[in-house]
Amino acid sequence: MSEAVQTLEGWYALHDFRTIDWSAWKLLSAEERAKAEDELHTMLREWSDIEERREGSTAFYTIVGQKADFVLMHLRETLDELNELENAFNKTTFAQYTKPVYSYVSIVELSSYMAKPGTDPMQDPDIMARLKPSLPKSKHICFYPMNKRRSGNDNWYTLSMEERRAHMRSHGMIGRSYAGRVKQIITGSVGLDDWEWGVTLFSDDPLTFKKLVYEMRFDEASARYGEFGAFYVGNLLDADKCRQLLSIG
Amino acid sequence: MSEAVQTLEGWYALHDFRTIDWSAWKLLSAEERAKAEDELHTMLREWSDIEERREGSTAFYTIVGQKADFVLMHLRETLDELNELENAFNKTTFAQYTKPVYSYVSIVELSSYMAKPGTDPMQDPDIMARLKPSLPKSKHICFYPMNKRRSGNDNWYTLSMEERRAHMRSHGMIGRSYAGRVKQIITGSVGLDDWEWGVTLFSDDPLTFKKLVYEMRFDEASARYGEFGAFYVGNLLDADKCRQLLSIG
Amino acid sequence: MSEAVQTLEGWYALHDFRTIDWSAWKLLSAEERAKAEDELHTMLREWSDIEERREGSTAFYTIVGQKADFVLMHLRETLDELNELENAFNKTTFAQYTKPVYSYVSIVELSSYMAKPGTDPMQDPDIMARLKPSLPKSKHICFYPMNKRRSGNDNWYTLSMEERRAHMRSHGMIGRSYAGRVKQIITGSVGLDDWEWGVTLFSDDPLTFKKLVYEMRFDEASARYGEFGAFYVGNLLDADKCRQLLSIG
Amino acid sequence: MSEAVQTLEGWYALHDFRTIDWSAWKLLSAEERAKAEDELHTMLREWSDIEERREGSTAFYTIVGQKADFVLMHLRETLDELNELENAFNKTTFAQYTKPVYSYVSIVELSSYMAKPGTDPMQDPDIMARLKPSLPKSKHICFYPMNKRRSGNDNWYTLSMEERRAHMRSHGMIGRSYAGRVKQIITGSVGLDDWEWGVTLFSDDPLTFKKLVYEMRFDEASARYGEFGAFYVGNLLDADKCRQLLSIG
Amino acid sequence: MSEAVQTLEGWYALHDFRTIDWSAWKLLSAEERAKAEDELHTMLREWSDIEERREGSTAFYTIVGQKADFVLMHLRETLDELNELENAFNKTTFAQYTKPVYSYVSIVELSSYMAKPGTDPMQDPDIMARLKPSLPKSKHICFYPMNKRRSGNDNWYTLSMEERRAHMRSHGMIGRSYAGRVKQIITGSVGLDDWEWGVTLFSDDPLTFKKLVYEMRFDEASARYGEFGAFYVGNLLDADKCRQLLSIG
Repeated sequence: MSEAVQTLEGWYALHDFRTIDWSAWKLLSAEERAKAEDELHTMLREWSDIEERREGSTAFYTIVGQKADFVLMHLRETLDELNELENAFNKTTFAQYTKPVYSYVSIVELSSYMAKPGTDPMQDPDIMARLKPSLPKSKHICFYPMNKRRSGNDNWYTLSMEERRAHMRSHGMIGRSYAGRVKQIITGSVGLDDWEWGVTLFSDDPLTFKKLVYEMRFDEASARYGEFGAFYVGNLLDADKCRQLLSIG
Repeated sequence: MSEAVQTLEGWYALHDFRTIDWSAWKLLSAEERAKAEDELHTMLREWSDIEERREGSTAFYTIVGQKADFVLMHLRETLDELNELENAFNKTTFAQYTKPVYSYVSIVELSSYMAKPGTDPMQDPDIMARLKPSLPKSKHICFYPMNKRRSGNDNWYTLSMEERRAHMRSHGMIGRSYAGRVKQIITGSVGLDDWEWGVTLFSDDPLTFKKLVYEMRFDEASARYGEFGAFYVGNLLDADKCRQLLSIG
Repeated sequence: MSEAVQTLEGWYALHDFRTIDWSAWKLLSAEERAKAEDELHTMLREWSDIEERREGSTAFYTIVGQKADFVLMHLRETLDELNELENAFNKTTFAQYTKPVYSYVSIVELSSYMAKPGTDPMQDPDIMARLKPSLPKSKHICFYPMNKRRSGNDNWYTLSMEERRAHMRSHGMIGRSYAGRVKQIITGSVGLDDWEWGVTLFSDDPLTFKKLVYEMRFDEASARYGEFGAFYVGNLLDADKCRQLLSIG
Repeated sequence: MSEAVQTLEGWYALHDFRTIDWSAWKLLSAEERAKAEDELHTMLREWSDIEERREGSTAFYTIVGQKADFVLMHLRETLDELNELENAFNKTTFAQYTKPVYSYVSIVELSSYMAKPGTDPMQDPDIMARLKPSLPKSKHICFYPMNKRRSGNDNWYTLSMEERRAHMRSHGMIGRSYAGRVKQIITGSVGLDDWEWGVTLFSDDPLTFKKLVYEMRFDEASARYGEFGAFYVGNLLDADKCRQLLSIG
Repeated sequence: MSEAVQTLEGWYALHDFRTIDWSAWKLLSAEERAKAEDELHTMLREWSDIEERREGSTAFYTIVGQKADFVLMHLRETLDELNELENAFNKTTFAQYTKPVYSYVSIVELSSYMAKPGTDPMQDPDIMARLKPSLPKSKHICFYPMNKRRSGNDNWYTLSMEERRAHMRSHGMIGRSYAGRVKQIITGSVGLDDWEWGVTLFSDDPLTFKKLVYEMRFDEASARYGEFGAFYVGNLLDADKCRQLLSIG
């Protein structure tokens, strides 16, 4: 019998991908649009206040291409808060002019493959900062869900702890070589959503997403054991960019 | 030839996942919404009465993320009652402001891998309580459908009864270690719906869903033989929470 | 080279699964609904007359869950008759308040794995009755499409006739042990629809569907070679039940 | 390295599957419907004239079941003509009352597995007639797309030319045994659409489609190497049948 | 551990596939359509100016069949420019009469399997022209996304660099034999979209797409390691053809 690695969990995460119904949005009068945008900006400021109080964090990015127009990635202490937040958003005027296209429910996770023996990770401020992080304000975001494969001879879950540890060490070394250029948030979703993990990357240069994911693909942990879902990539939406996105001639 | 394990069946189950059409719901007048909610609460009370008479049971939870806004899980003695129930719900005003997104038809099931020889399980009150259960009022729900794999060398249905029994015993031991923290209802759906089983978990801490499913994934019964569908997770909707969910500014 | 088994074919079959657009149906006046129902019942009687003349047969059942609200299973001598029938139905008022969700085109089939040598099956009245059957009025229906697998070492179509015959004999013995409790109509759809066969089961106890399909799954013909599509299960709709289903407050 | 067989190509093909929006069609006045039908029949006659000038060919059939209400299969000398044709159709009034459901882009193809050495096939009038055919007016049509498999040990594209030739010879012998009862048009779609080939069969007896495809399935070329998409089957739509199809009470 | 090949990247690419809502487009008055077309042509001219300044490139083609009515393929220096461009297009009147059906986000890529040692490719004007190309005005386009396979024994990412280089050399030789007849743009999308690469082919003869892709399929790099998505094929849309496409009666 294989043995599960211990994991540490922090904040719950909701990735909320949506498209804008441009035809309906354009049909609104300038006043109605202004009112809807005001309501949205009020909500964005509330989320920003929560972030300042370190009770959660929210990232707001466009998504390039037809998959979505934007993503809101929310981190909160409880699943209940995430649910209240999405229901509040659904009741706004702006939300009526958007269509949900994809969402992901998960929880910030650190695996202890590399844990130092004899220490209590929950007492480590670095680890706590990684479990309850303020999401970066990098220029670009990349999100994709993934599984560890369980097919024929390529079955991650029948490997010994030692084999998995060796794979993860090699994998982590590639990640570390990108330190400073890309920030990675791993969220676990076993029992919460359809894939086992969500990977959210932040960088000022989107080419870094490609370089990092491509280099890792040759690593055995990905080459033999990685299964990947859809990839979403986009650009930071600050208050100005958001106004620009929603402005109509 | 492999031999089928004997199963015991109890109440039929219908999981009914739906989203709310917020734009249409908001267009209603406060009076119309109140009337629609009254009709819903009347129906919820009828289902509650049935539960008190021990003729069935109903669980009502939100679902986090875009997959659905809520799930109604109904248990009833017959498939006919479930069908009448869903038709009655479909004719309510509230149902008009929801869209069906997923449903699951199954029947509460206990497999006799662990049965004590020489006893009649249908005379055992513990077993009858598990076959016709009152659904818990835990804070959180998790639902997912699953199959036992039949591919190449990983074919559950060509294993001997002894091999399957050993796998299920190991699997059950993990489950038992979560006793008190999570309540599990297994419903069988071979011949009734697209997967072979539905798993519904109830817990006051949603992290328990993740811990349990992740630990089981390393168990050979899951690692080699488990195939999993979509995962749905949510929060208890009592009458107050339901009013809060449906209230519009 | 493997050799195809001879098959006997009878009536063509169309399974027509539909949901009801309850919001639109409720918007009709009671008079308009009554008129639409009258037209439906006239059509049901015409189909019933055809059945009495033994020129075809029609089964009408609800489907439990969101997959569909009802299924109409039609058997007719020719594909042209089935096509005319569906076009006539599509032009009715009632059809306007339904949405097609799934259909299946096939033909009643008997395979001659068990044929007695030296006899002409088309002269056998029992066989003719099975090829052109009056569909049962059992309380419940179950439908699913299936393939014989062709993947790697599990390739039904490269087995010898003898191996296939042995598998089908074992499979048939399970089926026979359910005689009297379940009636099975096999329809072939190679070259007609996306799966190779459709299986339609009729029984007064829906638990029988689960018991039968589950027991067969351990038989090698299913365990190694069976691939199954979606399962649909429902309840008999006679004229009264149909009026009840469509009645609004 | 395996070697590609030479292929000969003729006319480009567009299969255009559509459903009729019966509710909207019924809402039109009899005059409006008559006008829309006149426009359709004018277009059908233009396509018929093109066929008489041997500059293309068009087949028009219903499709049985919910997948589509009809298919228009067009053959033309160039991809540009097919594109102009579909755009012209899209702009008709009738097209507004249909919904596209599936299409297939390909080109009539003959493979030279059986070519006689030392001859120029493009000088052979029989071959030219098969590359630029007038589509039959048989009572029934069957269409399905297919691939040659490339998975594990069942990889068509790593077989030697000799092995592939032997498979195709055996396959062709089955086809020839159906000569006179079924006419087969193979269209290649590598680089043009999602599958590698489209197969269009014409016959006066739809049971022939089933018999032919089923017998071929036991042939190694299909059993090990064939992957099949959706199957569409239907009935000839001449001008009278077309009027009948579109007539409303 | 396998080693990732070095790649060179140029302009970001957005393929934007859309269908036209003909019913809505026809409902506009001739004046409204003219105004919408003027706005579109102004935008096309702006994109053309950008191309002349060598700050990007845009290709505009119809797509044959129901998958889409047209594709706009844009190349720009940054992901931000692509995003601004798609948002600007979404706000036009013409866009309101189209529906997005598929898009692809990638970046022009050259792999250095064939790089000359000891040279700096970014100083090579030929290479720079290939990384930031003006898209051809060929009569036809073909687009498809692809992966290198990672399944069982057919795992591209566990091959040694030498094996991969040999495969790519053989693959490239087939491509070179089509030089002058087809122009190929490879865009990488690892970490950016759902497949690993997008292949866009341009040719004056669409049969060349079929010949090239079919010949390559027998090459081991494709036969064992290539996985292909949907194929889109179409015809050049210059200003005149565009007016013709959008003209109504």
